[in-house]
Amino acid sequence: MDFTRFLSTIRRHTQLTEQEEQKLCSFLSIKKVKRREFLVRAGEDARHEYFVNKGCLRTYYLDKKGVEHNTYFAIEGFWVSDIYSRTFNTPALCNIIALEDCELVHISNISLEAFLKEVPALEHFFRVSYQNSLATIHLKQIQLLSLSGCERYNYFRNKYPELDRRVPQKHIASYLGFTPEFFNTVRAKTIRSKMDSALSL
Amino acid sequence: MDFTRFLSTIRRHTQLTEQEEQKLCSFLSIKKVKRREFLVRAGEDARHEYFVNKGCLRTYYLDKKGVEHNTYFAIEGFWVSDIYSRTFNTPALCNIIALEDCELVHISNISLEAFLKEVPALEHFFRVSYQNSLATIHLKQIQLLSLSGCERYNYFRNKYPELDRRVPQKHIASYLGFTPEFFNTVRAKTIRSKMDSALSL
Repeated sequence: MDFTRFLSTIRRHTQLTEQEEQKLCSFLSIKKVKRREFLVRAGEDARHEYFVNKGCLRTYYLDKKGVEHNTYFAIEGFWVSDIYSRTFNTPALCNIIALEDCELVHISNISLEAFLKEVPALEHFFRVSYQNSLATIHLKQIQLLSLSGCERYNYFRNKYPELDRRVPQKHIASYLGFTPEFFNTVRAKTIRSKMDSALSL
Repeated sequence: MDFTRFLSTIRRHTQLTEQEEQKLCSFLSIKKVKRREFLVRAGEDARHEYFVNKGCLRTYYLDKKGVEHNTYFAIEGFWVSDIYSRTFNTPALCNIIALEDCELVHISNISLEAFLKEVPALEHFFRVSYQNSLATIHLKQIQLLSLSGCERYNYFRNKYPELDRRVPQKHIASYLGFTPEFFNTVRAKTIRSKMDSALSL
């Protein structure tokens, strides 16, 4: 089982002893999910934290009218779970589905909580990760109020070029809260503005 | 300086030694803010974490057209800060203003980070708090997609009766993403449905 990427992500932000790393690895497992397979289904218990070793996943909420609303994408080095289910021991609110064949490192919530209590350096890692996520969500909320559709699309492309390359554009549109028609207008504007810039050089 | 409420909040979720509590208190200060005064102004550095000892505050983003969008309310026992500014050392995105005369316990980000490194029990407290906040934000995001205006308004009133009582209704409307006109319709519907229920008993 290959935990290299997982451990190097942890090591970038905190320092575990060799013994702690070995113990952590003893709690980890590998899960493989084929393209179009579900990792988590809404309504089911989802009491694991996942780390993407390989592949790309999409989290979405399916509304009463059958419309899918994308809320998150994950590629190599990202974490993914239904945080509401995992935190409050409730059924999952969202579906998580593989957009490519995936390999995930996973740990059950029970093991993770026990391990965090034992190893302060990992508690630090997750506290900082969650704080960064909260700050990023706060920024996204403000961008929704302050930026135009084009600006938000460009921000996403610049911030996450790898997602822009691998996630189908219709899913990015849904993530940004665009209708397909509005997304086509935004894309056309973006392309036109790039051509204008190129021509004026 | 009265840190009783602050310490009892911490004690509900984690256990510090007497020495750790004393050391933590040595980093804390009290700040008083009069009604309508700003605690944080957008564009300024906001490198403190605040805990509400007394009073009620409103966090809002002011858009280019001069419209205020409420993003958060805090009363006794709540934490409040511009998390983006505090996490990434950038200027604050939002304004935080007092809706009542307030008393806040505060700690600088630098002191907090140093103390968290020293005291794993407090690191645990903040990790759990941030995880709960992320899960709650996730639920709010899904409610925006799944519940009607009336349902979201009723959820807010049931979940936060104290905020419903103390925060002016126009600010709750903005927090829920309602226009004033839509909010009036939602309120009228809620009152009518309550009267219908009472009459049918």
